[in-house]
Amino acid sequence: MSLSIPTVTDQAANGLFISFEGGEAVGKTTQIRLLTEQLENEGYQVVSTREPGGTDLGNQLRNLVQHGPEDVNPKAEALLYAADRSYHVATKIRPALEAGKVVITDRYLDSSIAYQGGARGLGEDVESLSRWATDGLMPHVTFLLDANPEDVHSRRDGATDRLERESLTFHQAVRERFLELAAAEPGRILVLDALSDPEAIAAQIWQHLNARLTDGRHQLVKS
Amino acid sequence: MSLSIPTVTDQAANGLFISFEGGEAVGKTTQIRLLTEQLENEGYQVVSTREPGGTDLGNQLRNLVQHGPEDVNPKAEALLYAADRSYHVATKIRPALEAGKVVITDRYLDSSIAYQGGARGLGEDVESLSRWATDGLMPHVTFLLDANPEDVHSRRDGATDRLERESLTFHQAVRERFLELAAAEPGRILVLDALSDPEAIAAQIWQHLNARLTDGRHQLVKS
Repeated sequence: MSLSIPTVTDQAANGLFISFEGGEAVGKTTQIRLLTEQLENEGYQVVSTREPGGTDLGNQLRNLVQHGPEDVNPKAEALLYAADRSYHVATKIRPALEAGKVVITDRYLDSSIAYQGGARGLGEDVESLSRWATDGLMPHVTFLLDANPEDVHSRRDGATDRLERESLTFHQAVRERFLELAAAEPGRILVLDALSDPEAIAAQIWQHLNARLTDGRHQLVKS
Repeated sequence: MSLSIPTVTDQAANGLFISFEGGEAVGKTTQIRLLTEQLENEGYQVVSTREPGGTDLGNQLRNLVQHGPEDVNPKAEALLYAADRSYHVATKIRPALEAGKVVITDRYLDSSIAYQGGARGLGEDVESLSRWATDGLMPHVTFLLDANPEDVHSRRDGATDRLERESLTFHQAVRERFLELAAAEPGRILVLDALSDPEAIAAQIWQHLNARLTDGRHQLVKS
């Protein structure tokens, strides 16, 4: 008995699917804003979304997990995130890709693996759940904003002390898992130094995407 | 890549785990009430629960699925039910069984297989998800209240017409799947004629359980 998991990665036709990954406070929101602006300036149609919470149902699930009972067991949590992703892909991401749009998501599969799989001991099962939930849909390009959690912490003077001493180990485990994923899939995941100047990071991202946007691999619509 | 699904069925020590299964309006609620009363009269400690909705989180998920967006895709729905079951088992069912109680649940794994797996085309995947979600916990005894959906419909004069003509096919497919499950596991699932007199059904249930309650297989506590 096992799940029927697609063995071939599904990269939906037409559109371009981009994910941003990384730990807390590494600057994903800023980079997604800058990239969306640049793509729209060039005439591309962009859908900017996030997980969890990219849909109404997703927002409710996000609330359930973040403000629900404190005793949610890791498997129930992993299943809720997989449900969110399944609905997100079916109703928002896949239709946009089929329409030739650029979809940018703040977190996707790699976050589940790094947070639930790596750091909480569920291992490969989290990846299997996601592959099943999404019918194997994977991003064409993933940008991993990487930084040592301690450095991120120290540059955020005056902010709430969320990365407290006792959780640093957790955030370091998450970072390690992200870097392992990048090492295993260098063709999909580009690692960027999150402590660099935001404009410099944006330039690296644009340079990496530029060829892809114009080499005819995707049938992107322009407005 | 696959889920790590327990190959050995986990039947939690000490307690006795009973599920009631069947289609709509077959009388599960009545039978659960009668059995609970009889067990309590004999001094057993009974936890009566249900799926979905046996916990606070489960109730919220039940609301999400039943009153949420109409376009919830089958895989997202299956994942939400699996999350509910995972939390239900981890926080309510397993602790009660470990304490030597009798747990009676209105629907469990077989309902997921019959409704999502059989009737909606997700096949064995639904069973794999549930086995993973519950770490393989299965009921010791399952009572399947069986009736032809058309007969249940015709005896409910004046009730809301939920089993409309166009959905009869669906409910018949659900019934068939339940009966297939019972045929495959005759040692666990007892099929009962839901159209019999409720007191007669209750007597059959009690007769079936009686030996189990006293033969020393379970370490049940009495109050």
